[in-house]
Amino acid sequence: MIIREATTADFEAIWPIVQQVAAAGETYPYPRDLSKAEGERLWMHVPQKTFVAEANGRILGTYYIKPNTGGGGSHVCNCGYMVAPEGRGRGVATALCEHSQRMALELGYKAMQFNLVISTNQVAVRLWNKLGFETVGRLPKAFNHPGHGFVDALVLYKWLAEA
Amino acid sequence: MIIREATTADFEAIWPIVQQVAAAGETYPYPRDLSKAEGERLWMHVPQKTFVAEANGRILGTYYIKPNTGGGGSHVCNCGYMVAPEGRGRGVATALCEHSQRMALELGYKAMQFNLVISTNQVAVRLWNKLGFETVGRLPKAFNHPGHGFVDALVLYKWLAEA
Repeated sequence: MIIREATTADFEAIWPIVQQVAAAGETYPYPRDLSKAEGERLWMHVPQKTFVAEANGRILGTYYIKPNTGGGGSHVCNCGYMVAPEGRGRGVATALCEHSQRMALELGYKAMQFNLVISTNQVAVRLWNKLGFETVGRLPKAFNHPGHGFVDALVLYKWLAEA
Repeated sequence: MIIREATTADFEAIWPIVQQVAAAGETYPYPRDLSKAEGERLWMHVPQKTFVAEANGRILGTYYIKPNTGGGGSHVCNCGYMVAPEGRGRGVATALCEHSQRMALELGYKAMQFNLVISTNQVAVRLWNKLGFETVGRLPKAFNHPGHGFVDALVLYKWLAEA
């Protein structure tokens, strides 16, 4: 598996992943009927950079990196990760997250923040905690989950830089 | 003092307030050299609605309201408030915040979130706490303060709806 920056042409392979995650409505605050154009804007254009994990010419996962805010908050980045169904259980999310942390430092960031980790997404919470992200906030009933109704969302944060 | 929706023409009076807050670099994650065009985009165009507090034809303060995220998080709004120097000590921030909570419910939101309240801005923290906002998160060193260096930022949250 290699991780490389996504090209414009990669979006054809990225879109089914984003569409499926959006349609499920369980982990990302995207409209469940997200259009392809809006998906491309959110995943490819709004972010600073977008990457894909690829094996044997198949895209197994993807992540973006962007500043979380500006001005005095410019040293904190935000990333989002998605794994294709065929990439599950192969360490793709871990590989993407570790890559993104190195990329964050290369791009001059000092910390990484996840603003809305849905509390019911326990696989993600456990993985991010294991990779050194601390749960620094809990937003009561901040996410309307299609199966569970209003559930809490978590804010996760990791300081990456030496100082 | 009345609070009313801002018109395009109001930005001439709003801009000095936004510019001063941005230039100070102490409370908002805006570039300190924020341009007027970017200020207008951030305060007037990105938000869903923008309001002003006015007394005797002078604008004493302003706030915006917008969705904090989309999809399953669409019931949570985000607001930002700024008070002009001549509005200080006159209850303007309280009036704006109370107005914004009513407006949030009118617009169909159920909760309000402040994503980055700078921990050194104790006047704001105390006021929001007094107005029912709970500190639900602390982001370590998430803000680079011109006077204090890297300081923590707080996440504040209030559920507004009946259920």
